[in-house]
Amino acid sequence: MRLVSFLQTGRAGYGAVRGAAVVDLTGPLGSRYPDLKTLLAAEALDEARAVLATGAGSIPLTDIEFLPVIPNPDKIFCVGMNYEMHRQETGRDETPYPTIFTRFAASQLGHGQPAWRPRLSSQFDYEGELAVVIGRAGRYIRRADALDHIAGYSCYSDLSVRDWQLHTTQFTPGKNFPRSGGFGPWLVTRDEIADPTRLELSTRVNGETVQHARVADMVFPIAVIIEYLSSFIELTPGDVIATGTPGGVGQCREPPLWLQPGDVVEVEISAIGTLTNPVIAEP
Amino acid sequence: MRLVSFLQTGRAGYGAVRGAAVVDLTGPLGSRYPDLKTLLAAEALDEARAVLATGAGSIPLTDIEFLPVIPNPDKIFCVGMNYEMHRQETGRDETPYPTIFTRFAASQLGHGQPAWRPRLSSQFDYEGELAVVIGRAGRYIRRADALDHIAGYSCYSDLSVRDWQLHTTQFTPGKNFPRSGGFGPWLVTRDEIADPTRLELSTRVNGETVQHARVADMVFPIAVIIEYLSSFIELTPGDVIATGTPGGVGQCREPPLWLQPGDVVEVEISAIGTLTNPVIAEP
Repeated sequence: MRLVSFLQTGRAGYGAVRGAAVVDLTGPLGSRYPDLKTLLAAEALDEARAVLATGAGSIPLTDIEFLPVIPNPDKIFCVGMNYEMHRQETGRDETPYPTIFTRFAASQLGHGQPAWRPRLSSQFDYEGELAVVIGRAGRYIRRADALDHIAGYSCYSDLSVRDWQLHTTQFTPGKNFPRSGGFGPWLVTRDEIADPTRLELSTRVNGETVQHARVADMVFPIAVIIEYLSSFIELTPGDVIATGTPGGVGQCREPPLWLQPGDVVEVEISAIGTLTNPVIAEP
Repeated sequence: MRLVSFLQTGRAGYGAVRGAAVVDLTGPLGSRYPDLKTLLAAEALDEARAVLATGAGSIPLTDIEFLPVIPNPDKIFCVGMNYEMHRQETGRDETPYPTIFTRFAASQLGHGQPAWRPRLSSQFDYEGELAVVIGRAGRYIRRADALDHIAGYSCYSDLSVRDWQLHTTQFTPGKNFPRSGGFGPWLVTRDEIADPTRLELSTRVNGETVQHARVADMVFPIAVIIEYLSSFIELTPGDVIATGTPGGVGQCREPPLWLQPGDVVEVEISAIGTLTNPVIAEP
């Protein structure tokens, strides 16, 4: 099942994709589960499947505006240097633990929504990533049990403002500009992706492939990341983990390839789909 | 006015302190402003003052459990290395910008609540800090206007798990263990603190002073921090800024002074009050 959060003529809702339409789940389920995060927390995917099967309340995908898959996560974790080629190109040391930084929900945007090249920087860079969405809460999750806590997978476009990221040792500023965290187009539920290590990820700028990797090449696999995060904080439904970007970022090219207004960034992951965001100058 | 968030026999509420009691604001104002963050967002402090003046609905402070002043902030920013002595004792480089890392709300605890020394670490350290709470939203706030966006001030106990903080370059893990971010006891509204640089801060462990500084000694003053943060993200009401800790942390002593179950940590700031948290072993 592919689950989306959306706006339709100003109203926020969520639904399940069926062909070129979305079956609105907000009508039948919204009183009990006001948003997708709450639906996941209730482990109510079977109810969603039942509504999807009826096909009632279907809206053409062309009539909705995609929101970030989870517009209101409690926590967004990002993993740095999680593909060897990216670690090497950025000149960072190997570490025995995953590098964890964070985004605030206010930085996110949905599929199709324009990303903002900041007024204050020209160093706007792409980072295509696999996003993991937590479905079941847990602390001290063992890696053997980690996948059971996943609701599903999506694409993340961790657009980065490099000069602000490197103002100090801490990445926070460069990773939290508004309209810089693309998340979508939808969540593919875990039952459809038996083995996430078989996924492949590509990032394209204006149609040209600039990053390509297999999820199997992660330095810290998904289960290890979940074990690590849950050792210091309770994971809760709707939490998002952007699992890191492969080599090939714009900053490390000669000359650097910075995103410009008018560019289009796509993050495609096999068995999930393609997240597309045009870049505009910050209004 | 001193504003608190609290639990009374399992019910969450907020109120204003009057002598040794809290005037419950939840009854008269809760239907319009369900929590303190919403009250601040509505700039409804005059309504709170009117209820406080009546003294109705008064609860002895001994009958409440303090919650973090803002239990549900959208964003918690922490400033690293913001007192010269602490920068030097940690051996960090000078930076032209404030060092910004983040906490999740789930890591917070209120005045009097026990802090948890983690099961997974013995390097549990104190950091007393001045907390600034945002009252008015803003982006691109100029430093000359910054104080107008502040609702008030409180104490923050930024308890840090040093080995986890230093697993990689990013501080996130060591700053987000549950029950590690003391915040309270109350918010003192800005009208009562004309010049925050005149405040003095002390941290005590078991009654012994381990940190002492004047807020005037910050490397990046409050107005500069607000200007910087609001250049990359919109500040919104209820956002918390822990403005950094002075020198004297336990990690940098010879031998190190790590917090143990049974210790009591106090953060006292003049014109605000004292935040007290006993340390227990993680249950």
